[in-house]
Amino acid sequence: VSRHLIDAFATTGPMAEVFSDRSVLQALLDVETALAHAQAETGMIPAAAAESIARAARAERFDAAAIADASRQSASIVIPLVEALTGRVREIDQAAAGYVHWGATSQDILDTAMSLLVQRGREILSRDHAGLSTALGNLSERHKSDVMLARTLLQPGVPTTFGLKAAVWCHAVRRSWRRLSEATDEAAVLQFGGAGGTLASLDSAGPRVTTALAHQLGLRAPTAPWQADRDRIAALVSGCGLYCGALGKMARDVSLLMQFEVGEAAEPGGGSSSMPHKRNPAGSAIVLATATRLPGLVASSIAALVQEHERAVGGWHAEWATLADALQTTGSALAAARGLVEGLTIDAGRMRVNLEATGGSFALERLTMMVARKHGRERAQEMVRQVLARMRSERLTLAQAVQMTPEVATSLSEHQLRLLPQAEDYLGLAEQFRQRLLEED
Amino acid sequence: VSRHLIDAFATTGPMAEVFSDRSVLQALLDVETALAHAQAETGMIPAAAAESIARAARAERFDAAAIADASRQSASIVIPLVEALTGRVREIDQAAAGYVHWGATSQDILDTAMSLLVQRGREILSRDHAGLSTALGNLSERHKSDVMLARTLLQPGVPTTFGLKAAVWCHAVRRSWRRLSEATDEAAVLQFGGAGGTLASLDSAGPRVTTALAHQLGLRAPTAPWQADRDRIAALVSGCGLYCGALGKMARDVSLLMQFEVGEAAEPGGGSSSMPHKRNPAGSAIVLATATRLPGLVASSIAALVQEHERAVGGWHAEWATLADALQTTGSALAAARGLVEGLTIDAGRMRVNLEATGGSFALERLTMMVARKHGRERAQEMVRQVLARMRSERLTLAQAVQMTPEVATSLSEHQLRLLPQAEDYLGLAEQFRQRLLEED
Amino acid sequence: VSRHLIDAFATTGPMAEVFSDRSVLQALLDVETALAHAQAETGMIPAAAAESIARAARAERFDAAAIADASRQSASIVIPLVEALTGRVREIDQAAAGYVHWGATSQDILDTAMSLLVQRGREILSRDHAGLSTALGNLSERHKSDVMLARTLLQPGVPTTFGLKAAVWCHAVRRSWRRLSEATDEAAVLQFGGAGGTLASLDSAGPRVTTALAHQLGLRAPTAPWQADRDRIAALVSGCGLYCGALGKMARDVSLLMQFEVGEAAEPGGGSSSMPHKRNPAGSAIVLATATRLPGLVASSIAALVQEHERAVGGWHAEWATLADALQTTGSALAAARGLVEGLTIDAGRMRVNLEATGGSFALERLTMMVARKHGRERAQEMVRQVLARMRSERLTLAQAVQMTPEVATSLSEHQLRLLPQAEDYLGLAEQFRQRLLEED
Amino acid sequence: VSRHLIDAFATTGPMAEVFSDRSVLQALLDVETALAHAQAETGMIPAAAAESIARAARAERFDAAAIADASRQSASIVIPLVEALTGRVREIDQAAAGYVHWGATSQDILDTAMSLLVQRGREILSRDHAGLSTALGNLSERHKSDVMLARTLLQPGVPTTFGLKAAVWCHAVRRSWRRLSEATDEAAVLQFGGAGGTLASLDSAGPRVTTALAHQLGLRAPTAPWQADRDRIAALVSGCGLYCGALGKMARDVSLLMQFEVGEAAEPGGGSSSMPHKRNPAGSAIVLATATRLPGLVASSIAALVQEHERAVGGWHAEWATLADALQTTGSALAAARGLVEGLTIDAGRMRVNLEATGGSFALERLTMMVARKHGRERAQEMVRQVLARMRSERLTLAQAVQMTPEVATSLSEHQLRLLPQAEDYLGLAEQFRQRLLEED
Repeated sequence: VSRHLIDAFATTGPMAEVFSDRSVLQALLDVETALAHAQAETGMIPAAAAESIARAARAERFDAAAIADASRQSASIVIPLVEALTGRVREIDQAAAGYVHWGATSQDILDTAMSLLVQRGREILSRDHAGLSTALGNLSERHKSDVMLARTLLQPGVPTTFGLKAAVWCHAVRRSWRRLSEATDEAAVLQFGGAGGTLASLDSAGPRVTTALAHQLGLRAPTAPWQADRDRIAALVSGCGLYCGALGKMARDVSLLMQFEVGEAAEPGGGSSSMPHKRNPAGSAIVLATATRLPGLVASSIAALVQEHERAVGGWHAEWATLADALQTTGSALAAARGLVEGLTIDAGRMRVNLEATGGSFALERLTMMVARKHGRERAQEMVRQVLARMRSERLTLAQAVQMTPEVATSLSEHQLRLLPQAEDYLGLAEQFRQRLLEED
Repeated sequence: VSRHLIDAFATTGPMAEVFSDRSVLQALLDVETALAHAQAETGMIPAAAAESIARAARAERFDAAAIADASRQSASIVIPLVEALTGRVREIDQAAAGYVHWGATSQDILDTAMSLLVQRGREILSRDHAGLSTALGNLSERHKSDVMLARTLLQPGVPTTFGLKAAVWCHAVRRSWRRLSEATDEAAVLQFGGAGGTLASLDSAGPRVTTALAHQLGLRAPTAPWQADRDRIAALVSGCGLYCGALGKMARDVSLLMQFEVGEAAEPGGGSSSMPHKRNPAGSAIVLATATRLPGLVASSIAALVQEHERAVGGWHAEWATLADALQTTGSALAAARGLVEGLTIDAGRMRVNLEATGGSFALERLTMMVARKHGRERAQEMVRQVLARMRSERLTLAQAVQMTPEVATSLSEHQLRLLPQAEDYLGLAEQFRQRLLEED
Repeated sequence: VSRHLIDAFATTGPMAEVFSDRSVLQALLDVETALAHAQAETGMIPAAAAESIARAARAERFDAAAIADASRQSASIVIPLVEALTGRVREIDQAAAGYVHWGATSQDILDTAMSLLVQRGREILSRDHAGLSTALGNLSERHKSDVMLARTLLQPGVPTTFGLKAAVWCHAVRRSWRRLSEATDEAAVLQFGGAGGTLASLDSAGPRVTTALAHQLGLRAPTAPWQADRDRIAALVSGCGLYCGALGKMARDVSLLMQFEVGEAAEPGGGSSSMPHKRNPAGSAIVLATATRLPGLVASSIAALVQEHERAVGGWHAEWATLADALQTTGSALAAARGLVEGLTIDAGRMRVNLEATGGSFALERLTMMVARKHGRERAQEMVRQVLARMRSERLTLAQAVQMTPEVATSLSEHQLRLLPQAEDYLGLAEQFRQRLLEED
Repeated sequence: VSRHLIDAFATTGPMAEVFSDRSVLQALLDVETALAHAQAETGMIPAAAAESIARAARAERFDAAAIADASRQSASIVIPLVEALTGRVREIDQAAAGYVHWGATSQDILDTAMSLLVQRGREILSRDHAGLSTALGNLSERHKSDVMLARTLLQPGVPTTFGLKAAVWCHAVRRSWRRLSEATDEAAVLQFGGAGGTLASLDSAGPRVTTALAHQLGLRAPTAPWQADRDRIAALVSGCGLYCGALGKMARDVSLLMQFEVGEAAEPGGGSSSMPHKRNPAGSAIVLATATRLPGLVASSIAALVQEHERAVGGWHAEWATLADALQTTGSALAAARGLVEGLTIDAGRMRVNLEATGGSFALERLTMMVARKHGRERAQEMVRQVLARMRSERLTLAQAVQMTPEVATSLSEHQLRLLPQAEDYLGLAEQFRQRLLEED
């Protein structure tokens, strides 16, 4: 595993693997190999040379640290890599050494390798997202009838269901996934333009080699080289930001529901080194940490868009760490979110207790509407304020306070009076919305 | 005009108008009016009441400053507005006052009003983008044969054409517009959920009122209320960021081409208070200022996604200024970019001069490829390095230096030797890429 | 008032006044006036000319909107302003018109005017901070003996006091204020360098005029002109970000304490348009909205540091909106925070109830330490886990569970057993820390 | 070396070493060891136990990957580490195992370990800054008489010296270093508060153990524990942002001066894989990449300030990756900047050529001032515009054009006419400012 301890919550094993030295090296070498094959296919270089290049281009034979060191001289990790690759090829096939990196420029190799890594990262995210999405759908289904308080500005509001709450999380996560997924597809694109983005080095063979290269690598070929147009990468990082925002909203809710004083949900969660009784929202913490970091990463990636001419000084070089960070930390949040949702336990009884503890004030909107139908909204609000005052001063439930306020009580039918304290009768379209949210997509 | 001097480059007259007090007030009042009409339509409130509400709901009758002051008590500009509106309605129709804001919550009004403002802002942006897009297409077409240096890391590279350069700008701007435009459409959506997002206050009439309300306002109805799911807004701000990044890349290039020492392009541009001769990249400055600010605005909007339960404390309240800022400043950059491109003059002669001033080093890649076909890439690089050394030490052109390096000279045919210094013969796929970039979309 | 409705929570009346057109215009004109006076003082221009310039330089005579419009041509609001000022002067004193803006450049005027506005903004912030700081000290003092749960990861921990909690808020706010205050002082500095930062236009009079000008305006003179070195401004915006972060932490805590299920604190707070019973954390919402926006503003201001040569294209122009935004929104958060703290009510009874509701689990750390002294930490943790399991399975208090676990009970003295459930006996250094935090600074 | 290839420009060998698994592990273990020693010193635990703990606490005996994996369960890397450490201690001294991590909480260990790492990082930065600062001072001194164009909005302005330019860079870098250095000192502080920040677990020994612990580790003891008050860390990251902004401004200038068309400076710099002649601004690229990334990292660190109660869910967990990133990438930029400045070559001849190429327009401000002294600024501007028009239409130098405009020519003395084209006579206070900038600090 190539993850560092300091980044324990900023990546996962599989995501760290994608951006490990070995994987990055191999992706770069895969592009050099595919280039050689594509050029052999179109007759530009001998087929035997391509074979030799392919044989030499094995990550395990290269010294990542040495390449990283040397790269600072040229601000390019490809230049020392090509030099090393040429050396390896020469060892096995002197003639082939002359065909390494033929007609390409460093950026072609690096951008295309990043596209390959994005594709691999996407697969991991995709798998975890599918798990999370399913788990959220099941969670919502399982608790579709669990009535709880809606909370606005962290204060109790009208009743809702946990099923709807989970469906809202689910829809937001799926909606954001669609964006991220599209952005990933758009970003995983071949770069091949030569020194200045005109492919002049290949004479007339440019289009054929491009097509063959894209095919070799399983990447889409772009309309034209995109050396200094990095919007696809910034859009991908933004997609990560939006997706982690949706995860973060859910984790914030979970951490709030897990408060001892609320107690409506619990993560399987973790312990404390000093307080043995604690059941911490550990998964939520990892998700929220990511949601705190992503906005800054998105800002960095958008700031990098202002690039100079046909290849930038710095803007381009700012991308790799940001992109790798964004994808890895998204992967970390997603893994934590999936674990969190799959292991989440819901305490429907406690939801009911919290609802009742408000003394029925969740029905004040309903009461206002009932009275308003008779007296208009203004007058109704005034009357309801009286009821509320009585509730508070005499510590009554809403039903009791209504009974003791004749003007209000007489505005309501028997039936209405009976319905008033029944939360499950004031759920509006909760179930309808829930179903719609889960059906869509 | 409601723009401030301090924001002179952060908005334009028309965009400032959209977010002026009058316009914001009227948008809020339009939503209240539409709600009343929708409810009258479905028989929830008397038609006469809706009429009276509509008559009262005129922005010019409300005191924006007083509402802004009062809003700090409740962290809501809608609460004091509804109070004021109720007062105005009462003055003309006592009975109707009771039906103002019927069954709605503040957020329904505010979110929906923001959607209306987004739509209006979009129209302005759309118009300016169309102008910019056309101007860029024309610019590229006009200069399709103007040969210039591609520049990588701010150093001269191989030749390209200004036509391709402009086409690359154009495609990036159009591609980013597509994203922004989709994000705007997605964001301009009705919000209608009542106190907790269940529409319980409307009993069974919820779906019908929702449909009527969306229709009244010309907005899409969402799958379900989205009070605490703000990804559409953050996606819109991100879309602004990506779009302004594409504008910024173009403005950076223009400001670099306008340098006295480069002199290949000129904005109509502005003066200086101390140096009468200066022709400044004023439009570029406004665009680049925006591109500098947007990443931070995007970060703010994504950070706001982590919202609590059914309505957030703060996250929601952070949005308005950010969204209004992002749209206005995008409008400002776009107007400047359009003016800049429409008035841009290109000096093809100077492009040629700068190209020649390199002594033909733009052909070094070509020379390497030519020699490499005979001697392989490694050997070729070594030989070309000798040519280069001679160019530098003896201050020769490339052609001269080749002639004086027999090993190299004899590697080339007559024809190749003649072609070497001709930049227009080393443009590769420049024109093909240019056409593809302009045709797409 | 010049605040907009859309910015209702992003500024306050007094802060909006500082950045109003009138105030910005007057600040610019004040600099032109001071320049004329300084130059008259040193004999560069006639004293009468300076008098005429001073008389003409009254903001109310200038059309801010026209200047804002014209400014887009030159990317400078000073160029059209100087033109307009010259016109006004000419009307009253033909000869004096020739001495307007003598030897200065636009940036000298604009940067120095911003320094004046920063100073004015600082006074407002300073006043509100003093009020907040005092209120926090008093709050801490008043509740120094109110015992409550410390909460870590939103779970109950050991006991603490509300007095310490408020003192921690207070110290962080004061510490951050010191940083912000120093950054403001550092940023409010004269800019005077002429066209290129050498003051060549003033011949040998440069140093004397600089001194006189700084004195006229009550600003510090810098070591040298700082046209393209904007670190002081970015440091000021960062200072706002850190300060608002401290306010935000406090507001987050308050909004959590105000939850119905917690109920330990209450803002004077605001209503809801649909739920009459709600007492919302309105002040916290405004503070948290600011804390959500500031990180992005800081990012923008730091991104603007990378400026070109002696005056930037865009980086400089990005500053004004960002700086004005940061100061105003800080002012808004501060005003809200002050109101919040001054009106905060604390429910010490509820704090006790919540503490007891844990069944004494707040003492588990203590119990572990007590047992560990006899059996070592490892063994103690194991024994305490048994106690904890018993508490949970048999729904006992900690004291009861200890009694029923002989091995543990016998590890403790009578005295220890008696102390265990007493939260006020397990406050450690809470009071000592509280006093230190309040005394410092 | 523990740097990854993907982060080649985001860290350096020495900085990566500081945040390597080994170093992070050892820092954590050093804190546990120091805690044991401090407690032994005050008689809380047996001296022999402290010795055993110290012997066991060697990073090389721990499996970082396993700890990273396990840490996700509790969102804490300290919990699995303490468990592993206890195991190691038990192996060598059964009795001592019971005294590991005595009375501490995870956060105490982690925060304090981070303070140690910050100190180590600071030393590396400090060394490189000293080198850079010296090199900049020397650079300025060496070129104090090299006259060049000041450039505003990337257009030629009045003359200045490269000595002043370098002194301006130098002062900004030193000024920002002072901020960063202070922020680092402030941030490297002990954390010791136990479970809830009251140190209740240590009874009356809290103050003594705190003092001993701080002394052991060479860290400052804070006024009180600061678990949820992270402003010092955010201030440190902001300090990195401001410092890298100053480096970035310099690198931007260098990359612009290195343009082929400008040619006034050159980095030792690096090659290109496709264009053998290129001398790229490789150091500038690394610095500018960092300057592009930092604003986002600062935003993340400030966003993390809004923490819940006595220990946050997520905000705290977001810090490590951000802080480690910020310090490492600052170290990378600083190393690149130092190399860049130490190897920078300046072409004074080319500076002169570029100056002359303007035809003397650098003297237009001077001419205006000369004429204005006779005719007033308004009239002078008009006359100079005529001169300028003639320069352009007839392709004259300024001196020639003045000669051919009698009204202007006769306004000037012989002496003035002679001075006009002499750039070194229009340097104003350049040398005076240069000396002041270098002397300060």
